Amino acid sequence: MVNRQEKDTLGTVQVPAGAYYGAQTARAVANFPISGLKPHPALLRATLIIKKCAAKANMATGRLDEKIATAIIQAADEALAGAFAGDFVVDPFQAGAGTSHNMNANEVLANRANELLGCPIGSYEQVNANDHVNMAQSTNDVFPTAMRLASLQMVALLRHELEQLRDALAAKGREFDHILKSGRTHLQDAVPIRLGQEFEAYAVAMDKNVAGLDRCLPDLSKLGLGGTAVGTGLNAEPRYIELVVEEIARETGLPVMNAGNLIESTQNMDPFVVLSSALKGLAVNLIRIANDLRLLSSGPRTGFNEINLPPLQPGSSIMPGKINPVMAEVTDMVAFQVIGADTTITLAAQAGQMELNVMMPVIAYNLLFSLEILKNTIAKFRENCILGITANENRCSRFLEESVGLATVLAPYVGYAAAAEVAKESMRSGQSIKEVILSRNLLSPEELAQILAPYPLTNPGVPGKA
Amino acid sequence: MVNRQEKDTLGTVQVPAGAYYGAQTARAVANFPISGLKPHPALLRATLIIKKCAAKANMATGRLDEKIATAIIQAADEALAGAFAGDFVVDPFQAGAGTSHNMNANEVLANRANELLGCPIGSYEQVNANDHVNMAQSTNDVFPTAMRLASLQMVALLRHELEQLRDALAAKGREFDHILKSGRTHLQDAVPIRLGQEFEAYAVAMDKNVAGLDRCLPDLSKLGLGGTAVGTGLNAEPRYIELVVEEIARETGLPVMNAGNLIESTQNMDPFVVLSSALKGLAVNLIRIANDLRLLSSGPRTGFNEINLPPLQPGSSIMPGKINPVMAEVTDMVAFQVIGADTTITLAAQAGQMELNVMMPVIAYNLLFSLEILKNTIAKFRENCILGITANENRCSRFLEESVGLATVLAPYVGYAAAAEVAKESMRSGQSIKEVILSRNLLSPEELAQILAPYPLTNPGVPGKA
Amino acid sequence: MVNRQEKDTLGTVQVPAGAYYGAQTARAVANFPISGLKPHPALLRATLIIKKCAAKANMATGRLDEKIATAIIQAADEALAGAFAGDFVVDPFQAGAGTSHNMNANEVLANRANELLGCPIGSYEQVNANDHVNMAQSTNDVFPTAMRLASLQMVALLRHELEQLRDALAAKGREFDHILKSGRTHLQDAVPIRLGQEFEAYAVAMDKNVAGLDRCLPDLSKLGLGGTAVGTGLNAEPRYIELVVEEIARETGLPVMNAGNLIESTQNMDPFVVLSSALKGLAVNLIRIANDLRLLSSGPRTGFNEINLPPLQPGSSIMPGKINPVMAEVTDMVAFQVIGADTTITLAAQAGQMELNVMMPVIAYNLLFSLEILKNTIAKFRENCILGITANENRCSRFLEESVGLATVLAPYVGYAAAAEVAKESMRSGQSIKEVILSRNLLSPEELAQILAPYPLTNPGVPGKA
Amino acid sequence: MVNRQEKDTLGTVQVPAGAYYGAQTARAVANFPISGLKPHPALLRATLIIKKCAAKANMATGRLDEKIATAIIQAADEALAGAFAGDFVVDPFQAGAGTSHNMNANEVLANRANELLGCPIGSYEQVNANDHVNMAQSTNDVFPTAMRLASLQMVALLRHELEQLRDALAAKGREFDHILKSGRTHLQDAVPIRLGQEFEAYAVAMDKNVAGLDRCLPDLSKLGLGGTAVGTGLNAEPRYIELVVEEIARETGLPVMNAGNLIESTQNMDPFVVLSSALKGLAVNLIRIANDLRLLSSGPRTGFNEINLPPLQPGSSIMPGKINPVMAEVTDMVAFQVIGADTTITLAAQAGQMELNVMMPVIAYNLLFSLEILKNTIAKFRENCILGITANENRCSRFLEESVGLATVLAPYVGYAAAAEVAKESMRSGQSIKEVILSRNLLSPEELAQILAPYPLTNPGVPGKA
Repeated sequence: MVNRQEKDTLGTVQVPAGAYYGAQTARAVANFPISGLKPHPALLRATLIIKKCAAKANMATGRLDEKIATAIIQAADEALAGAFAGDFVVDPFQAGAGTSHNMNANEVLANRANELLGCPIGSYEQVNANDHVNMAQSTNDVFPTAMRLASLQMVALLRHELEQLRDALAAKGREFDHILKSGRTHLQDAVPIRLGQEFEAYAVAMDKNVAGLDRCLPDLSKLGLGGTAVGTGLNAEPRYIELVVEEIARETGLPVMNAGNLIESTQNMDPFVVLSSALKGLAVNLIRIANDLRLLSSGPRTGFNEINLPPLQPGSSIMPGKINPVMAEVTDMVAFQVIGADTTITLAAQAGQMELNVMMPVIAYNLLFSLEILKNTIAKFRENCILGITANENRCSRFLEESVGLATVLAPYVGYAAAAEVAKESMRSGQSIKEVILSRNLLSPEELAQILAPYPLTNPGVPGKA
Repeated sequence: MVNRQEKDTLGTVQVPAGAYYGAQTARAVANFPISGLKPHPALLRATLIIKKCAAKANMATGRLDEKIATAIIQAADEALAGAFAGDFVVDPFQAGAGTSHNMNANEVLANRANELLGCPIGSYEQVNANDHVNMAQSTNDVFPTAMRLASLQMVALLRHELEQLRDALAAKGREFDHILKSGRTHLQDAVPIRLGQEFEAYAVAMDKNVAGLDRCLPDLSKLGLGGTAVGTGLNAEPRYIELVVEEIARETGLPVMNAGNLIESTQNMDPFVVLSSALKGLAVNLIRIANDLRLLSSGPRTGFNEINLPPLQPGSSIMPGKINPVMAEVTDMVAFQVIGADTTITLAAQAGQMELNVMMPVIAYNLLFSLEILKNTIAKFRENCILGITANENRCSRFLEESVGLATVLAPYVGYAAAAEVAKESMRSGQSIKEVILSRNLLSPEELAQILAPYPLTNPGVPGKA
Repeated sequence: MVNRQEKDTLGTVQVPAGAYYGAQTARAVANFPISGLKPHPALLRATLIIKKCAAKANMATGRLDEKIATAIIQAADEALAGAFAGDFVVDPFQAGAGTSHNMNANEVLANRANELLGCPIGSYEQVNANDHVNMAQSTNDVFPTAMRLASLQMVALLRHELEQLRDALAAKGREFDHILKSGRTHLQDAVPIRLGQEFEAYAVAMDKNVAGLDRCLPDLSKLGLGGTAVGTGLNAEPRYIELVVEEIARETGLPVMNAGNLIESTQNMDPFVVLSSALKGLAVNLIRIANDLRLLSSGPRTGFNEINLPPLQPGSSIMPGKINPVMAEVTDMVAFQVIGADTTITLAAQAGQMELNVMMPVIAYNLLFSLEILKNTIAKFRENCILGITANENRCSRFLEESVGLATVLAPYVGYAAAAEVAKESMRSGQSIKEVILSRNLLSPEELAQILAPYPLTNPGVPGKA
Repeated sequence: MVNRQEKDTLGTVQVPAGAYYGAQTARAVANFPISGLKPHPALLRATLIIKKCAAKANMATGRLDEKIATAIIQAADEALAGAFAGDFVVDPFQAGAGTSHNMNANEVLANRANELLGCPIGSYEQVNANDHVNMAQSTNDVFPTAMRLASLQMVALLRHELEQLRDALAAKGREFDHILKSGRTHLQDAVPIRLGQEFEAYAVAMDKNVAGLDRCLPDLSKLGLGGTAVGTGLNAEPRYIELVVEEIARETGLPVMNAGNLIESTQNMDPFVVLSSALKGLAVNLIRIANDLRLLSSGPRTGFNEINLPPLQPGSSIMPGKINPVMAEVTDMVAFQVIGADTTITLAAQAGQMELNVMMPVIAYNLLFSLEILKNTIAKFRENCILGITANENRCSRFLEESVGLATVLAPYVGYAAAAEVAKESMRSGQSIKEVILSRNLLSPEELAQILAPYPLTNPGVPGKA
């Protein structure tokens, strides 16, 4: 590959001849061959939007020449439309604070802007990456702002999938509302419940996680852009600081605003810690639901077998006919990933020092990866699993009748201790609770029928009492 | 020690003769000699309040005899006033779901109520632990409700201390607002900032954590009491469910309400996961602040030495005269504990199965321990450390002048590349940025004086331009 | 309470009149009212042993006067025998590096030694806490050495319990070796296995964790004592450094030795990180085993019900006759605690800076708490749960026959695809695999009997082929 | 894209016409569009080696036709040489236990083997993915075996880089052995140390982590291959089980052996938990070292500035001339990632149930990602950072002289309390410790010169005493 030579403040650097990026990106490629991964599209997109809006704002304050600003804006628009995709090449594991990521964007846009103005790539004749594209900006305000914007975009997508999952669970709740079964606590026989109530509870849990995401939005919407190097705003005019956030609001349609205290906003990763916590909370509930579905569909012969998950693929390379709860399993695995990511984000967030948290890139990488895989998994979990669940009603009602937990309804009539004797007798003899009650003449058949009428057992009240 | 014999549904149990607790507590003491710890006072208090309010509600619905109810209420009031403290003896690491904790309370109150009614301890003649004290309740709704009430109480105490810490930091921000110094990013010389701005940013961070606590309150206030065993409310009348929460609101002054979906409320640990996340977020910020203070006070001769922390105790058993930043260090350690507790809580929360999360006791233990040590630490951190911080102004202003970061102000005038040459010359020669600029005639002394006037450098704007 | 006044290098301090501790301990009590907890007995014991052995070594080198040394040694022996228990009062959450813990020991021993020499408590006339009791020592080498010694003592106790648990599981493996049942993978019917094989596998897992503990011992046995403040050994003679470790080896019977590089040994928490990891690995396996037992004993009517755990206590305050797997549940909770402690220890270990890791106290607290609760839990898990497990053989063999996983044995004869058809037919019709094979004439009854002879199905080989 | 139709046990599936993979892979592609990532090369390679060796072993036992075996072996060799790279397409986040990963390999090899035997892709005329390629195997023994083999390969690469890092640190230790400086504990002035001693301690720490990796190898080398579905070895002849491991040992050159208890080996993730712990331990030490280097190189004007890290790239987009410790920063970030991965692995490992841990894929993904990024980062950290570090000797010796920690040497002469007075006077007046001692006539200039001769201060002994 032919190279061109570029100079930066540290010396001469070889850059691939056709690359839109420049010296500092080339240094970063050489310095950080860590994961082989590329920047998350949402982070790149957010960075480009910032560059475009900064150029507009700097033009509006008169500090940036209109011709240069226009070229930068056009370059950014092209990149936002997908151009130069192969030129954003810096590993997510990179220089502290994301300097290399920011310079990659500055260089690509500077080179393209020069090109648009008739100057060759690598010449920087009219447009300089630092002085023009990065004007009134620092990595230290650009990168955390890009993280906020990318998070907001991804949260919206996740939230949409989550609402659909919630609604699908709620629909199953209604579909299964008539199916009576035995509840289980400690995995032991407990009192009756309806299968629909179980799914409804999952829907309520998902709704709490939707609310959990919403609680993160206000802080994510407060941008520190304009704070520049340490949040004081050195080299950024007050008018620019105002305008650039307005431009971003316009460009993205997001309700973003100035953070107020830009120093705090530059150094404190709190909004990302809070968002990661919300994702962890969601992961916890997804694990619970996925595991319950795995339990309820266990068997078919040696497990609970109360529900059927839709068969998606042969379950075993050796055991013919086996069907596994694969969507529930992958949901678990993704949730574990998200919880591990939260550990990483916590470690990175607490490692901030003085005016900056240089660990931002690893926070951005994990947060966006978590958002991405949660979004994708929740969509498939709903489509491939939840929507197709069917119930084994006979099995459910057999469990309802056999459950030793039914002894509970007796307690208000004969007391806890006597009711426990019934339960023990049932376990000893293999008889159902109903049979023991009758054989011991504890209640008449009529009383029993009234007290053990199944549906009321799943609603508040002492059975058999108005 | 003389024992009395008691019987429960599993057989005969030896109970210490004078104990107010009974058979099931005695079993728990034998089964769970794990940590040697006792229940957290706030959890115990919350449990007793629930018992008292349940007795009131059950009396109001007419299900519980007034004489028995009155005795239970009096017993609960005595216990709330500190009686029987030695009778709440179950290890926090205990039976799943906290059954033993709940039965310990039921037994103590039953025995005391019997005693008040003239029946001997251990007789359960008039008042039964299960049938009366636990009437219309299950561990499965009592324990998570107690966790919510205890959390609310402890959060209020923590929040109070946190506000005071925030205010103390803000006051230091005002006190130090005139002290100019060099900022640091990547621990390297950066552009100027005021020491007061740094403390103000810490205050803003703490304020975010206050808001983070507040965001937890609504969900914590939604009680699942009345759901009984699996949240369906079996054996609890609708009227009781309504009344018992009203009684708790009255008794505690807290804005508690019915959870709506009691099934979800019984099985989902989400409010505790969310609270633990908020504590973790607070811990992250405390670590950052404590570590910054340790850096700023490092030295006196071999470190930054920009501030002095109040000396509290000799710092070394071998190095005479050494003073260590002990309050900042213990703050770090407590924060690490809180973050580890969050891991435990996460693991426990995701382990819920079907109608119940039996891991509640370990969640309660860690959550209340975190709240306790955070509250205590924040109080001492403020009193013993923050309030007494003094600044070394000369040191700060020397750093301001010497910082290589000052080259930044030159960039709008001569461009990034030329300004970088100045910085490099300064590093090479040991001259200050100011001296290099003058020696290179890049700016006249008058221009320089205007551009490097220190205070404006810490506010938005391009220095030297209106 | 009457106080006496003491002076330290920072000024005058009030100390309770009768206390054996002194000024610095009193300062620590005032500075760190964090958790209300006391030092772990093993840590205290280790610290006292160090003090005793240091006095011996210092006497042997001639630096410490024999009379003073003898008094210190006697004071340490008294404390090791349980005296002054109420005088070790510093909260585990305390000054960085454990200075307060070390000074608490120095002060108690100094005061008692003075008393033995006829001088009043608080006078320090003949024996000084720093100059004599702490001679040739620093908190920075004493505290990590105490952590190592305490860990070694606690690991030995834990290891003993773990071996017994392993042996109990292995014995159950032999007891249940004849019980054939269906295996489960993905919680779905799988191929046959013997219940005994399952318990034997748990025993093997526990044996790996025993080996995991053993792998920690060599590094824990390497002591940095003699390194003093930063590991260079300033103020500690080479002869003392040699002797003090020999004395500790003699006193404790442990195979301790000099660490070689005392600088690394002072600053690197690696041995504790490694031990905490081993405990986490143990916790992971305990969770798996406990959860399997909870699954296998689920029911009795609505679960797997293949085994019975011994009933220990009534399982529910509302559901009469309910028995819960309480020992398995508390084992889970303790394991979660240990995993959370590992997070705290990781955070603390990575926070070391330069010559010292000041976060040692929180590492010590969590490590010893984990060791303590694991030891206690494993003992009770074995006694109260494992030893009393019984099997439901009929249930097991019914599952064996009904399991759809049996189709696997057919695959070598008719191919995977045809065998899958059999499995699907079985699921559709409710017939057993055996019945479908016969009804489809895929094998003769004689062939089938040979191929499905149950015991060989649980050992290597293609069934029905020699 | 043109598709071909394939049938599996669940029905008809569209497969891209030219794909070497088949129906089950196509199902997995549709079911798991989660992360967009591909299998780690080491895992794929290990899987192919297993397939090759299984074919050899099955041929040797006579169960697999020689013609088919030879075709499978050739197909595997081609794939190992890089063929069909675009056909291994299953997302790492996939079906529980890695069934899809295993079937992807089975299908590609089956199709290629058919092709080699003259049958079209998709026909499976002569070679069947399940019956032949997967003969005597199950995902449940193949996948954990592949994880072990891939881990062993990656650990060897990481270990090599780690040894080089250790040696580079040790070399710096020798290079800087003459440079005297002040130690720091609690970030406060402490007693003297040599810069070389600091780097030597880092080398010792790295050596411990090398040993930590080595401790993982024996367990990783024990393969459960031959256990098939649940570890009992159903459908795998004893002779095959023996041969297949021998073949793998031959093929890889690794000292692998049969695991002994294949049931435990199938279900227990312990070797991976242990390896992940070792990586976490390494991460912890890397963070410490990276952070120390960031502290030591802080400045140049406002920090410690005792060493210089090699400048790699301009440090700031806004601050000209700024150089940041980028390699130390990326090392931190990678270490945080590894610690987060350990959380995920812990969660996944504890989620195993009964005969299998279906969470293996997420364990494999995180373990191999951690190994990969650690290897790459450590190489660059050494090359780009450690090798080029230079020392600022003047700065170091100035700190040595000014450090208040020097008062420590006085204590053996005048006692701790009097030495503390000297330290306090030094802090008050700004004089050095030496100056205060002389001005107070505590020692004669000759005594002082002897006692404060710097080099001996960094070795064991009481200064000034033979």
